[in-house]
Amino acid sequence: MTNRVQEFNEFRGKMNERILGVDNRSIKRFFSVDTLTYERGALDVRTKEMLGLVASMVLRCDDCVSYHIQQCKKEGVTDDEMFDVFSVALVVGGSIAIPHLRRAVAFLDELNAESKR
Amino acid sequence: MTNRVQEFNEFRGKMNERILGVDNRSIKRFFSVDTLTYERGALDVRTKEMLGLVASMVLRCDDCVSYHIQQCKKEGVTDDEMFDVFSVALVVGGSIAIPHLRRAVAFLDELNAESKR
Amino acid sequence: MTNRVQEFNEFRGKMNERILGVDNRSIKRFFSVDTLTYERGALDVRTKEMLGLVASMVLRCDDCVSYHIQQCKKEGVTDDEMFDVFSVALVVGGSIAIPHLRRAVAFLDELNAESKR
Amino acid sequence: MTNRVQEFNEFRGKMNERILGVDNRSIKRFFSVDTLTYERGALDVRTKEMLGLVASMVLRCDDCVSYHIQQCKKEGVTDDEMFDVFSVALVVGGSIAIPHLRRAVAFLDELNAESKR
Amino acid sequence: MTNRVQEFNEFRGKMNERILGVDNRSIKRFFSVDTLTYERGALDVRTKEMLGLVASMVLRCDDCVSYHIQQCKKEGVTDDEMFDVFSVALVVGGSIAIPHLRRAVAFLDELNAESKR
Amino acid sequence: MTNRVQEFNEFRGKMNERILGVDNRSIKRFFSVDTLTYERGALDVRTKEMLGLVASMVLRCDDCVSYHIQQCKKEGVTDDEMFDVFSVALVVGGSIAIPHLRRAVAFLDELNAESKR
Repeated sequence: MTNRVQEFNEFRGKMNERILGVDNRSIKRFFSVDTLTYERGALDVRTKEMLGLVASMVLRCDDCVSYHIQQCKKEGVTDDEMFDVFSVALVVGGSIAIPHLRRAVAFLDELNAESKR
Repeated sequence: MTNRVQEFNEFRGKMNERILGVDNRSIKRFFSVDTLTYERGALDVRTKEMLGLVASMVLRCDDCVSYHIQQCKKEGVTDDEMFDVFSVALVVGGSIAIPHLRRAVAFLDELNAESKR
Repeated sequence: MTNRVQEFNEFRGKMNERILGVDNRSIKRFFSVDTLTYERGALDVRTKEMLGLVASMVLRCDDCVSYHIQQCKKEGVTDDEMFDVFSVALVVGGSIAIPHLRRAVAFLDELNAESKR
Repeated sequence: MTNRVQEFNEFRGKMNERILGVDNRSIKRFFSVDTLTYERGALDVRTKEMLGLVASMVLRCDDCVSYHIQQCKKEGVTDDEMFDVFSVALVVGGSIAIPHLRRAVAFLDELNAESKR
Repeated sequence: MTNRVQEFNEFRGKMNERILGVDNRSIKRFFSVDTLTYERGALDVRTKEMLGLVASMVLRCDDCVSYHIQQCKKEGVTDDEMFDVFSVALVVGGSIAIPHLRRAVAFLDELNAESKR
Repeated sequence: MTNRVQEFNEFRGKMNERILGVDNRSIKRFFSVDTLTYERGALDVRTKEMLGLVASMVLRCDDCVSYHIQQCKKEGVTDDEMFDVFSVALVVGGSIAIPHLRRAVAFLDELNAESKR
């Protein structure tokens, strides 16, 4: 049942390694800025991950949404809070976000099922 | 110096009134869902307004960004926290967001100048 | 051959039920405004569904396109009319919409094959 | 009061002439396909212009919206029908479309004021 | 291992034929302008294909990216040059492009594996 | 006549200084990656600037388009080559890019007028 979670993380890990193995300074530094951005600053990691989640959902990137859902759960964001993030994404981004919301909730359900094992 | 803030709010107010004066149930209800979404739920208003801000910036809507900057300030979001929100928007949305970031900071500076009077 | 149509509708139905089962007023009301919007108003349902179709295609949401193709067919939109909608989407949205057009036509063909049984 | 309508049409006309004066076959043909697309086909011009309007609004292009509002009015689309088009754009495209809706309604009001003179 | 490349090209070819078999002048002409655009003009085909690639990646269309990667390889664009194109897309389009970058590199690797056979 | 060019560059310079004066490491590093990306790599600066231009135009950012037009001119990109870049943007991005094309050509004309003085 959690195949999707595992497949997602394996492909993500494998391809990130492949991409960072290439000698392209701009891409490498972009990845490092990306990591830096979600570290604790004036805002805590938990808030930043919710910001990353809502941004990913209005831009309608399923993989980005899945990634930030995982990070949000690690930071203790509850399901009710997650749905509040989704509600902002839905209202700002419109009904075009609904199919992404469906896949986000399916992914969240798989994550929750996995953590209950 | 604060002309831009005032003009923005006046046009916004006038046109919202004009639009809600039209007998179109779908549009009226959309506006009411929009308001509801930023009310306190599992997340507080402050967090929701930051979510609205980052979503507006990655979708590159200057007026929406200006609106949520105002709301964030009302909720006590500091300038440093605001720049953390901007940093997530910039990294998620890319350099295409930079001109919107410039205008956002200019708007924030006008708001700050105004509140110091 | 019509597996894709069936799978799409089953996942859509199941996840909508799951999402509306959550106690989040903003999301629930958004779904209800969404439904209201396509009801007969100054424009008839048939025209509104074509509007929903073209909007979905320029925003490049395959699931939304599939949904509105089904609704358009229910409202008696012919294939020739559907291709006129596609042509507006293609010209407004550009060649980036072509892969979505391919999948839209494949979905339409499956729907047509199904209705001929 | 109708300065905005006039300025918009003058700049549009002048720049189209400038662009089509350049010897670039791809751009010229694109402009000609663009014109062709809104001619009567399986759908009438009126419906196609409403499709162009909703597509422009969800893609959030103020100039495109202004242009199609003018064309819709020429085709006899009433204000109530226009607001139905806007409602589909708003629900599909989300609150990020609201500032564009405000400017669209302001433009429509200028057009209406002009035609009453 | 090269199934993805083959499947992509087969579906693309089959659906293009299906679409161009329909009597819709606007769509047909759009496809012909699309072809014309990448022919040698003031810029050579190689440069134009890189332009098509970066445009496809910032607009986040996997199929368009796959297509232009194939064309770029035909025009002799090296892997290092391809990653330079990717770096511009990443910085302009932001981290939201990363999942598309992963799939682009996986597709490029399949193409390279195929050509080594 | 060249007021627009000058105003654009002044606001850009002033706000970049303001933004980089803030102690936000993520934003600072993003700006530095942005600069790095257009330096000579496997591709030369001239090609990279054309990539930046087409990406900016399909993402419909007027300021980004203006900036890359300036850079392209510095790198010796001719007007005919520039229109080839525009043609790719137009076909990939669709008619929604036309208003941005108009403003891009108007900006290019101002730049050209300026350099003839």
